Amino acid sequence: MLEITNKAYSLSEFIASKQVGRMDWKAEIEAAQSRIVPHVRRTPVLRATGMVIERPVEFKLEHLQHTGSFKARGAFNTLLSGPVPEAGLVAASGGNHGAAVACAAARLGHRATIFVPELAGPAKIALIERTGADLKVVPGVYADALDRARDHEATTGAMQIHAYDAPATVIGQGTCMAEWEDQGLTADTVLIAVGGGGLVAGALAWLEGRRKVVAVEPENACALHAALAVGTPVDVEVSGVAANALGARRIGDICLGLAREHRVVSTLVSDDAITTAQIALWQEMRQLVEPAGAAALAALISGAYRPEPGERVAVLICGGNITPDPIQG
Amino acid sequence: MLEITNKAYSLSEFIASKQVGRMDWKAEIEAAQSRIVPHVRRTPVLRATGMVIERPVEFKLEHLQHTGSFKARGAFNTLLSGPVPEAGLVAASGGNHGAAVACAAARLGHRATIFVPELAGPAKIALIERTGADLKVVPGVYADALDRARDHEATTGAMQIHAYDAPATVIGQGTCMAEWEDQGLTADTVLIAVGGGGLVAGALAWLEGRRKVVAVEPENACALHAALAVGTPVDVEVSGVAANALGARRIGDICLGLAREHRVVSTLVSDDAITTAQIALWQEMRQLVEPAGAAALAALISGAYRPEPGERVAVLICGGNITPDPIQG
Repeated sequence: MLEITNKAYSLSEFIASKQVGRMDWKAEIEAAQSRIVPHVRRTPVLRATGMVIERPVEFKLEHLQHTGSFKARGAFNTLLSGPVPEAGLVAASGGNHGAAVACAAARLGHRATIFVPELAGPAKIALIERTGADLKVVPGVYADALDRARDHEATTGAMQIHAYDAPATVIGQGTCMAEWEDQGLTADTVLIAVGGGGLVAGALAWLEGRRKVVAVEPENACALHAALAVGTPVDVEVSGVAANALGARRIGDICLGLAREHRVVSTLVSDDAITTAQIALWQEMRQLVEPAGAAALAALISGAYRPEPGERVAVLICGGNITPDPIQG
Repeated sequence: MLEITNKAYSLSEFIASKQVGRMDWKAEIEAAQSRIVPHVRRTPVLRATGMVIERPVEFKLEHLQHTGSFKARGAFNTLLSGPVPEAGLVAASGGNHGAAVACAAARLGHRATIFVPELAGPAKIALIERTGADLKVVPGVYADALDRARDHEATTGAMQIHAYDAPATVIGQGTCMAEWEDQGLTADTVLIAVGGGGLVAGALAWLEGRRKVVAVEPENACALHAALAVGTPVDVEVSGVAANALGARRIGDICLGLAREHRVVSTLVSDDAITTAQIALWQEMRQLVEPAGAAALAALISGAYRPEPGERVAVLICGGNITPDPIQG
């Protein structure tokens, strides 16, 4: 079995190190499940009808995870996979990954420095502050925060936890789909929102083509869609309602590799469609989620993805850290 | 097996009709489950730690039910238990029961007239309006709406569905606890918020003393607590943050009978404790619920109920129709 280290490897580094051919994603995800089970929640699932569309939908409510998104899985998996340096951890994040790393660090007794762009917004910033992490809010978008985090890593020796393009992160996120199958998922097709691609990569790695995966991106933050179109990761402009969670400027190498291997279906949704899905989730299911958390459902409601008759569909709700925070505690 | 009719029987009417001795609650609840399963959601469960208290808690997220509360169970059970008159249905409600009756009526093709007090608030009123029911907002509290509903029943021949003190309602609500046990509930003790007592009565009827039930009421809306103290239902003053959902002026006869038979533990929480629990549910679990939905957890957080060491506890989250509505769709 491949030794997973804490370093923020990209897939190209793996290929360079000639280890990728030996990567047994499924075994790694199973090992990660055992590793993180004391620390993460087994999030609920729900089969619901009447969600604007008439078709029944299986939901996984992963926004009930610690810190409000699936990111806790990758963070705990990374921290529990090997030693953490004295200088602690560093992460760049649109908000959710930073909150997850900060939470995992606090729980496991490590220092953490988190760089977020102003775009993260007050709700996610407050969430990180509550963990006690050293929070640095920087001008710009996620890529700017990542630059600052890399500088910090270089000067302090802190361990960088990449938000999506590192094997230990992807493997951790893969436990979400493994858990869902263990909870009795029946769908033919699973819709998943994509930012940098850590969550969908984990799902693709676990499923190995056994179910269809629809990767849903906002029209104005479509790094995977663009990369699939040109055959290689390319920088895209990012904006819109879901930008702080799905606004990666460039798709992860690991995600792109798995998306091509398993023939992911890539689809785009408008900001209006995302907002409509947010409203539906609140009105029909009393789940208040951030725009990224509603993006996958938006593809169904808007018709961006149209299932065949009889095709059973599932929607992963990935994040609930909405701005403005409806309750100022 | 007792024939369940649609009429809003109270337990005293049942006693008068000499049928109560033959009441097999468990069989009735099982029959109700079969009856309502195509129409209600099997709501999710979650085992969570870190909810302010260190102890792990099993939650049932019944606020994800249709119309945002458990009330859909009793409404569908009543409507499906027998014929509905041409004049349709009438219900009085602080909001949640009315929304459930209106939703069930719309789904099953019946007319519905719903009386709510102004206290129901704009979020619940909008919820009922969306169903297409004939909505009447009346001055005062729940008891005033009930008077109006009884007048309407007498003049039109519409079928009254009582919010809590009718066997078919209690039996419907009992399916919630039956479902929870089927989902693997392990707790020794279940905490449930009480207004008029339909939900806790259903739980007591199903459990038959197999688990401890803690009935949680606001200090300023404690109809069960007062009735247990004096040995008979008495009118209480109702006010406070949860009044539109838990503000029954007098506990239901059915609830009081079952509470005494099964030795319910009655406890009270302050409005501040309820608000603290609401904040915790949002901050730690991203569940935005109405005050009534947070009341049971409030008993744990505030220490109003203190479990023994090793005692496993569960909390039923019963309603999510918060005011103000955080999303105006």
